[in-house]
Parts: sequence; structure tokens; C-alpha cells
Amino acid sequence: MEEALKKKFEKGPLNFEAYFSEKALKMKASEIRELLKLVETSDVISLAGGLPNPKTFPVDIIDKILDEVIREHADKALQYGTTKGFTPLRLAIAEWLRKRYSIPTSKVDIMVTSGSQQALDLIGRVFINPGDIVVVEAPTYLAALQAFSFYEPNYIQIPLDDEGMRTDLLEEKLRELKAEGKKVKLVYTVPTFQNPAGVTMTEERRKHLLELASEYDFIIVEDDPYGELRYSGKPVPKIKALDTEGRVLYLGTFSKILAPGFRLGWIAGEPHFIRKLEIAKQSVDLCTNAFGQVVAWKYLEGGYLEEHIPKIIEFYKPRRDAMLEALEEYMPEGVKWTKPDGGMFVWVTLPDRVDTKLMLEKAVKRGVAYVPGEAFYAYRDVKNTMRLNFTYVDEDKIREGVKRLAETIKEEL
Amino acid sequence: MEEALKKKFEKGPLNFEAYFSEKALKMKASEIRELLKLVETSDVISLAGGLPNPKTFPVDIIDKILDEVIREHADKALQYGTTKGFTPLRLAIAEWLRKRYSIPTSKVDIMVTSGSQQALDLIGRVFINPGDIVVVEAPTYLAALQAFSFYEPNYIQIPLDDEGMRTDLLEEKLRELKAEGKKVKLVYTVPTFQNPAGVTMTEERRKHLLELASEYDFIIVEDDPYGELRYSGKPVPKIKALDTEGRVLYLGTFSKILAPGFRLGWIAGEPHFIRKLEIAKQSVDLCTNAFGQVVAWKYLEGGYLEEHIPKIIEFYKPRRDAMLEALEEYMPEGVKWTKPDGGMFVWVTLPDRVDTKLMLEKAVKRGVAYVPGEAFYAYRDVKNTMRLNFTYVDEDKIREGVKRLAETIKEEL
Repeated sequence: MEEALKKKFEKGPLNFEAYFSEKALKMKASEIRELLKLVETSDVISLAGGLPNPKTFPVDIIDKILDEVIREHADKALQYGTTKGFTPLRLAIAEWLRKRYSIPTSKVDIMVTSGSQQALDLIGRVFINPGDIVVVEAPTYLAALQAFSFYEPNYIQIPLDDEGMRTDLLEEKLRELKAEGKKVKLVYTVPTFQNPAGVTMTEERRKHLLELASEYDFIIVEDDPYGELRYSGKPVPKIKALDTEGRVLYLGTFSKILAPGFRLGWIAGEPHFIRKLEIAKQSVDLCTNAFGQVVAWKYLEGGYLEEHIPKIIEFYKPRRDAMLEALEEYMPEGVKWTKPDGGMFVWVTLPDRVDTKLMLEKAVKRGVAYVPGEAFYAYRDVKNTMRLNFTYVDEDKIREGVKRLAETIKEEL
Repeated sequence: MEEALKKKFEKGPLNFEAYFSEKALKMKASEIRELLKLVETSDVISLAGGLPNPKTFPVDIIDKILDEVIREHADKALQYGTTKGFTPLRLAIAEWLRKRYSIPTSKVDIMVTSGSQQALDLIGRVFINPGDIVVVEAPTYLAALQAFSFYEPNYIQIPLDDEGMRTDLLEEKLRELKAEGKKVKLVYTVPTFQNPAGVTMTEERRKHLLELASEYDFIIVEDDPYGELRYSGKPVPKIKALDTEGRVLYLGTFSKILAPGFRLGWIAGEPHFIRKLEIAKQSVDLCTNAFGQVVAWKYLEGGYLEEHIPKIIEFYKPRRDAMLEALEEYMPEGVKWTKPDGGMFVWVTLPDRVDTKLMLEKAVKRGVAYVPGEAFYAYRDVKNTMRLNFTYVDEDKIREGVKRLAETIKEEL
């Protein structure tokens, strides 16, 4: 038999592509990830990242919690968990949502997910039929596009301005669609310190969005990874806190307020929706890592989160300020950018004729990297924008990076 | 605006079902999970579980490793990881596969997954088109059916005997299919200490399966969660170790040799396949929890795994023995069961006329639970089988549980 095997091998390597599903053949690597790999290996100042700064991780608190977890909760932390998540953690999250955001949690269930990315995939799996209309912001979070696209929706892009999604334009679109006998299935928004644009949807628009959801009968996915990272301005209510009909699925994460390494997010929403998402999760990973869930529970329950958030803000605010100041100082006329009150990103718009994807190589040669904006548009129809991150590198490098970027742009114009 | 919202709410609750995708409407909760919930809350001796015994978790070793992780590797353990996994862990796994199983890892890449369940889902995503033919054992691991079914394959069941999958019957089937112009896309097998049947595929059949894969051009998924849990008999080579063409995707997990709480599995296979699986993973959860990966790396790298495996075996072997003895002692004539050399399960076959699903309620009344076998068949066409677990409860309870089960069966016959 070994002989036969050997002979077969002499046929040469497999035609690997022949085995893939049609959808797999269409899958492409994320540009951001490929780009990051490139930049990681050079001396470039990267404003392209999307990572929280490790200096914001509460290592001492985690150290203390780990001791407690292994001594008192090893049985739960090391075993399989239930699909919906570790109950004490789910209750602690509910308490946080109720106390801190006034989300009425009596009509809300919570499922823990393997990061918010999994929440996005599960929402795609449970809600999107091929051809269903999904509304996204323009620009929008690119990994949400990646997650949803597997389920083959038709996207509609609604532009953002400094007050978030243009709900007036959404209303127009909804009216048009209705006239054509079409319906929107869901609206995806990062309403607070948006990724990539940094802008925040006003309370008025949040209410308008909910009215539209009720009138035109769609559900809303409120993705809120950055909500706690506010450096200026007044808090705006969560859309979920204003949701009386149960149309909003609220996504949270521990990646920016504890650490990404435990890979923990959550979905809060109508129990019927959560139940179906739970069944979907059974088949994709059975359960989220129990160990991280017990750590996160202790972090919430011990009051550490509340204590730690001001420290993260204190760390990031000067970086945000440094970036906005440097943009003001160095950028040539014709360049515009957002002024975020929080989060991790500034969105820069160049004159129409500049293609930031083509310009990237030149920028990298000058020693600075950014993420070209194109991939943040569902239609990839905007070429003159870019995302800058201000959380990962320190103030001096932010200034130097923006200066190098400005020089690149000046040359390009 | 609040008025408008209030009025809308008076319309009554949403028709939740109306928002779900067609595939979501077909999703059903796993019977095993629902059953477990039921049994957890009563005094029943449960032989229905599938959990490793927490007494086998190396808590002291983990405690030591945690100290090291937080002091020396916090930066990696708490940050986002790459999609393919933490490189030192991937290298340590490769070394393990090479040294321990003689898998030639020069032509193999490894991706870390959020448990083996995620590996199964990703394989479905990357390889299965609706209507593709997927071969499974009869019975097979039910969560694999759950994972694959989302991608709408056509299943073909190949029966097991004490030597594993009947590859002679597979060959017949392949010949028939070929005559009809049809092809098998992939064969899924748990060849070693199978879940649910406990049987192990012989080396001869493994080679036969590989020959068939080459001749009829399909890929093989070798799911091996229990391979290290051998209590008797001689080791059999991994199918992957005999694979010269790169047709085998080998799935491993830390859940049975470290602890399930870190939710870590891996796929080892042809780099082209792994690359596509990596892209698929980007959109479903971006990366597996880094914290657990650093722990698992230390566990392998420190030699703890090799040291710990004999202790797990020492703990489980008497339980396996107790179950086989009790079956021998109590079961009435006409009842058959497998004699596993390892793993966690014994498979019991009752006379044809018994429906184990219908019998379950009576068994629970007598104080014992099992998993009815029906759900382990892709066609749900076999009613007289059941899965018994021997790793979770202790020897006395195993004996008492089997005794109660035998009484239930006697009454039923």
C-alpha cells in the first residue's frame, strides 16, 4: 500500500483551489492586516494600527484577579462554559448597562461572545438572507463589512457628518425603497467615536433612527467598542437606552476597557434574538473561553473597571490632543479631518484628486503609515480618505508622523 | 419624539421570527445541551455528559504558568493576536506533532482555533458548497453535523464496526457515486476513540482511506480530541502521519489534555488550506484569545504536557474499567456495547425494537441519564443506541448508574 501512496504523490501537488467552496474562493485577506504585517517589520511610524496601547492594560489588577481565579474559581474557569456565557459575568454586564447607561435590562438578555467580531458574524448568520438590504455608514467599520458580506447582503451606504449618520438621507432612502416595494433588514452603526471616522451621532439623530426603525420596521446593530473612551464633550445616551421596541442589538467589548487578550465581547438584546444567536453560536464555537469570562467577572464585580477607566482616558487624551494639534499645524490647505471627542481614530479627507491607496507607498518611504479609506466603504467608491490612529504611538511620534504625512500630501498635491 | 416612540411601543411586541434568516429559522438547539440543562438540576447520575473531569486539570501547573505569563509575557498575553495564532505556540504544537506522532511538519502549517468546534465550522465555510457530498461515520460526532449542516452538504453515512469506519463500504459507495458522475468532497472521521462510539480505526483502514482519498480525490478531516487518552492497546499512527499528498486536515485540542476553559484547538494541514482557513477566521472572530495561547505555549514548552498525560490516563482508566465491568455484570442479553481502548465514551446498542429517546424519561425516573443515539446519525435513522460517558462521575456512581440503566432496559424489553 505504501507503494501506491508513493506513486500517487508523484502526480505532483494537489490543485488546492479545486476544493474550496465558491464563497471561500471569493474571500480575500483584510488589507489592514496585510498592511500591518508590512509595517511591523520596519522603522515606519504607524498611524495605521487599531490596537489599544498595552500601557492601558491593568496588569496589576489582572495579576491580583488571576490569583483569586485559580484559588477560588478554578472549577468554573478551566471547564467548558455554557454557550450564552458565564452567568455571573452576564449579570455583572447587565448591572453595568443598567447603572451606567440606563439601559432597562429587564427586557434584555445578554450573550458573551468571542470578541465583538464574533457578534457581527453571528448577527450576519442569524439575520441576513442573500439579497437582504443592510444599511451601513459611509465610511463604516471594515471588519463588519467582512463579517456581513459572507451572508451576501446588498449594502446601502449612508454618509456621515460631524453629527454621525445622516438620518435625513436614510429617511429619503427608506422612502424610495418603500416605493419600490423594498425593505431594509438592518442598520449597522458605530454611533459613538466611530471607527473609522471618530464622529458621534447626536441624541436627536439617535431618536430619529429609532423612529425610522419603527416606521420602516428594521433592526439596529449598535456597535459600541469605544463608548467609555470619552476625552471631551458630554455623554450621549446609548441608542439601546432609548429603544422601547426591542429593535436594538447592543454590542460591547472588554478589549478597550480591560484587555483584548481575553477576547471577550457581548450582545445585549431582546431575549428572542439572543436565544437564536445562542443556537447559532453553539455550532460555531460552542462557548467563549471560560477563563477570560471569570477574570472579566471579577474585574466588574470588584469595581476595578470603574476605577480603571479614568486612567485609560488620562493616557489617551494627550495623544488625541497631540494629533489634532499636529494636523492643525502641518496639514496643507484643502485637507480636512474630524475632531473626535473620544475613541481611537481621526478621519482625514484629502482633495478629490488624491488616491490615498496609491499614495501609501510614498508615505511609507517617508516613514509614516496610515490606513487608506477605500476599504471602509461598502462600495469602495471613495479614494481620498484615510484613517489615523492616535492610541498606539506616543505624542512625539504622533507629531512626527503627522508631519511626515503632511509632507507626503504636500508633495502629492 | 418620545410620544411617537411610546405610541409605537403600544403596537405590541415585535414579531421576532420575521427578522431571522431562512437558515436561522431552521437552526435548532442541540438536544445534548438541552438535556444536560435538565439533568444538572436533579439527583440523576448522568452518564450523558461529555465533559472532562475537573480533577484532571493541572491546577498547580497552571497556577505556576499564570505567574510567569503575567510577569514575563503580559504584553503578548493581553493584546490582540494574529489570526493564525501565537507563533511560539504554533511552533510548539508543530514540534509535538513531529516528535510524538511522526507527522512530517515541514509541509504542514498550523492555525490555532477557538476550540475544535471552530475548526469544524471554518472547514465547513471554506470547503462545503450547498449539495457537496460529505461522508461521515454512522454514528458520528453530533456537533460536527451541527457545524457542517449550516453549509448544506449532502451527507453519506458509512457504518462503524470495532475497527472503525468500514472503508470497504466507503469504497463501494465511492464507486457507485462515480458511476453516477458524482464526487465526495470530504470525509470526516474521529478515527481514535471515536465520539460517540469509542472505537478506533485500524492502521490498515487508515491506509485504505488514504488510498481512496487519492483515487477518488477527496480531503479527509481527522478530528482527534481524545488521541492521548489511551488506557489499553497499542498506538495507531495518525492518518495525518501517513498522508503524503496533503489531503488530511488534522484537528487537535487542548480541552482534554490541559483544560477546556482556555478554548483552544488547532488545525494542522497543507499551507494552502490553512491560508484560506485563516482568511475565513478573520471575519468570524479575528483571533483566538491570546491569553490562553500563551498559557498553552508555556505548558508545552515547559514539558508539562508530557508529564501530565499519564496522570489523566491513571485517573480515567479505572473509570473505563468500572463501566465495562458494570455493563458485563448488569446488562441483559441482547444488549451490545463497544470496548474502547481510550477516550471518554462507550456506545451501547439495544435490540432493534427499543427507542432510546422514548426510554430516556423512564431512565431519568430511575435516576440515570444517557444520550440517545439518534442525534449522532446524519439521517437520524437509528433509534436503538445510546452514548455513555465514563470520565465525569466516579466509579461507584458509574456502577450504580449502569445498574439503574440495566434495570430500565430490562423493564423495556
